[in-house]
Amino acid sequence: MRDNSSQSPFNREQQYAAKRKAVIFAAGGAFRRRGYHNTSMVEIAKSLGLSKAALYYYVKSKVEILYECHVIVYGAMDVCVKSVKGQGDSGLEKLKLLYGEFASLLTRDGLALLADVDSLKGDFQAEVSARRGKIERAVTRLVKMGMADGSIKKADPKVTVFFLMGALNWMNVWYEADGRMSGEVIAAHFVDQMSAGIRA
Amino acid sequence: MRDNSSQSPFNREQQYAAKRKAVIFAAGGAFRRRGYHNTSMVEIAKSLGLSKAALYYYVKSKVEILYECHVIVYGAMDVCVKSVKGQGDSGLEKLKLLYGEFASLLTRDGLALLADVDSLKGDFQAEVSARRGKIERAVTRLVKMGMADGSIKKADPKVTVFFLMGALNWMNVWYEADGRMSGEVIAAHFVDQMSAGIRA
Repeated sequence: MRDNSSQSPFNREQQYAAKRKAVIFAAGGAFRRRGYHNTSMVEIAKSLGLSKAALYYYVKSKVEILYECHVIVYGAMDVCVKSVKGQGDSGLEKLKLLYGEFASLLTRDGLALLADVDSLKGDFQAEVSARRGKIERAVTRLVKMGMADGSIKKADPKVTVFFLMGALNWMNVWYEADGRMSGEVIAAHFVDQMSAGIRA
Repeated sequence: MRDNSSQSPFNREQQYAAKRKAVIFAAGGAFRRRGYHNTSMVEIAKSLGLSKAALYYYVKSKVEILYECHVIVYGAMDVCVKSVKGQGDSGLEKLKLLYGEFASLLTRDGLALLADVDSLKGDFQAEVSARRGKIERAVTRLVKMGMADGSIKKADPKVTVFFLMGALNWMNVWYEADGRMSGEVIAAHFVDQMSAGIRA
């Protein structure tokens, strides 16, 4: 008996997971463009050609979608942190690699750092805050490393990090995937402007 | 007959205007801390020791408060643009002065650049978008001037501006008026990191 379930279009779990992911990405894009509170479940369903009832087969609530959007972005950022580990000869070089990965990520797949953490409640909010904190600490570690090894100008590390993360977070307000500049060009620009701003 | 109405505590219009302003600033602070949609009119009224009915004596709706918050910030930014006019010898020097004024402004008076433009509708949204556009154009003009006079490194002016405005806009997420650093210290840091990032 051949088991080809891992790629089969008849595999129900896979189909369900793929459809659920499509729901979350479509909703995430709408949240980014119009704001979480200005997007209704009916509109999300419509944009996917689904009924509202069918939408609830994939997600329990709108706030669950918001939570999943955050989890997907922070999960992808964790992958970036791992992917640059062991690379770069100084704190600044390591930070440039990581920042470039972040900027590329945020111009791909409609992923966006949503600011709506306050609309999450309880466990959802606690987990998302923890994951955001983890990313901020990874960036702060590299900034401190650079200040110690002489590649980054000495200054308050916290304010330095807020500045460069702010530039990145603001992307979700202005970046359009179909705009005149490619994500790669924007990411390269961001790495240049960020690193020039902090190098020793 | 002496007319001292301009300073009198018995001047009703002045008293009304002062109270209305207090309502708007209290609400703006709450919007910034918890998000516009997560703050109710009842909570705003409570924080001022007012009944909900009394609150509606000063403002017609929550969205009107959000609109007024934006108008106050962009009005203050217009004043910054005017105040640095004629100062500075190059595009970069002019931009540093303006950016410093903006950063100081955003750490004063609980003023914040709110991201919730999408929650405004119709005329409110159109006016606020126009005023934000006006500020962005003023900044872009200085960036282009600096690229032309050789004080700012040549790059895409739009992305350059998005980067440095993003760092500023993100302040409303992390800045605490009662934090360990003064607004002036943060503003000076921001001017340094911004200008090092773009100078030729």
